[in-house]
Amino acid sequence: MRVALLGGTGDVGEGLAVRWGLDTAHELLVGSRDPERARTVAETYTETVADAGGDADIAGYVNKMAADRADVVVLAVPPYHVANTIAAVADSLDDDDVVVTPAAGMQRDEDGFSYRPPSAGSVAALVREETPDAVPVVGAFHNLAAGRLADLDAAMGIDTLVFGDDDDAVARVVQLAEEIDGLRALRVGGLGAAPEVESLTPLLINVAQQNDDLHDLGVRFH
Amino acid sequence: MRVALLGGTGDVGEGLAVRWGLDTAHELLVGSRDPERARTVAETYTETVADAGGDADIAGYVNKMAADRADVVVLAVPPYHVANTIAAVADSLDDDDVVVTPAAGMQRDEDGFSYRPPSAGSVAALVREETPDAVPVVGAFHNLAAGRLADLDAAMGIDTLVFGDDDDAVARVVQLAEEIDGLRALRVGGLGAAPEVESLTPLLINVAQQNDDLHDLGVRFH
Repeated sequence: MRVALLGGTGDVGEGLAVRWGLDTAHELLVGSRDPERARTVAETYTETVADAGGDADIAGYVNKMAADRADVVVLAVPPYHVANTIAAVADSLDDDDVVVTPAAGMQRDEDGFSYRPPSAGSVAALVREETPDAVPVVGAFHNLAAGRLADLDAAMGIDTLVFGDDDDAVARVVQLAEEIDGLRALRVGGLGAAPEVESLTPLLINVAQQNDDLHDLGVRFH
Repeated sequence: MRVALLGGTGDVGEGLAVRWGLDTAHELLVGSRDPERARTVAETYTETVADAGGDADIAGYVNKMAADRADVVVLAVPPYHVANTIAAVADSLDDDDVVVTPAAGMQRDEDGFSYRPPSAGSVAALVREETPDAVPVVGAFHNLAAGRLADLDAAMGIDTLVFGDDDDAVARVVQLAEEIDGLRALRVGGLGAAPEVESLTPLLINVAQQNDDLHDLGVRFH
């Protein structure tokens, strides 16, 4: 499978790239607005995987090119870059592709982080609005601490929640998620499930900040 | 300590009563609008604990009497009964007491459950509005599947999130929570943290409904 990580030079993109690089044979396409930076970062990720004993297939491209080549397109960008990132690649998406949204809208004040979705109601709803109608949208990978994901020595043993309105697209993302060692994918419904899933991200940050000895938190349902 | 469970004849009240009955020596006051029903149910809980080898101190009272005798008052009622339950006991609360809110506002449609807080912004915010100002309010025990809590053979191994603006009150509830075997209490901030914590309740229900072999779900942060 070919997986594009748009905004893949950021921390979520890094974590997913090196995990898939180590645990799968998928072709990984790190996308950025700056193709030169994408190529440099892709080399770094490849080295990280090699240091852990893996042989990753990771290359860097401008976002549009990465999306054009991919079967699965992960929007590893902050919520405020979702709309322009999709606009930049929309012509490269077709209805065999799946767009994956891992982002959560958050606001920080003196009490910590709170969930603040965009006016569409959730980041996933915004992604749905901005993505061509024929292309399925799936939410996944929200609640994985990026630092832990990127640390290939760190055990996972945690869950990711996957949701979407297209069953085949959800199944493809569930498979991709479970190919990461120690990650379990749990279905949670359609795109309407997005607010509760996205709300977990600020909650995890607050729990980590308020309790000693907890950091890079994930969650396990049992 | 004396702990009142208002609406304690319901499933959350049952779970907390039998767990504290088995694992602690606290005096447990099951409250109901109907004192006769409270007494009957308290006897049942006492028998449940006895069957598990414990010797619980559980008695039934009308809500107001339970609140009057207690140091900690748990509002084990649905969100739409919060306001009238507090109104019924307000004269019995003093500033040495702690009011605990475990409820979440939810709505069910064809896609599953969604978080729907009351207009105050969260159930905890509603409880804060309705409770006399001098009495601290703490959120806790939201994300414990009632059936699992009430089944004294079921292992816990899960977390509860505790939040509030009064540090001493939060500490008292953290202690009460951790006295339940296998339950870990994690602090998550002030009352402003309520929406993200309450949102976990519908999420847990949806995850349990969508994944085979998962039921009575709890969550572990790690």
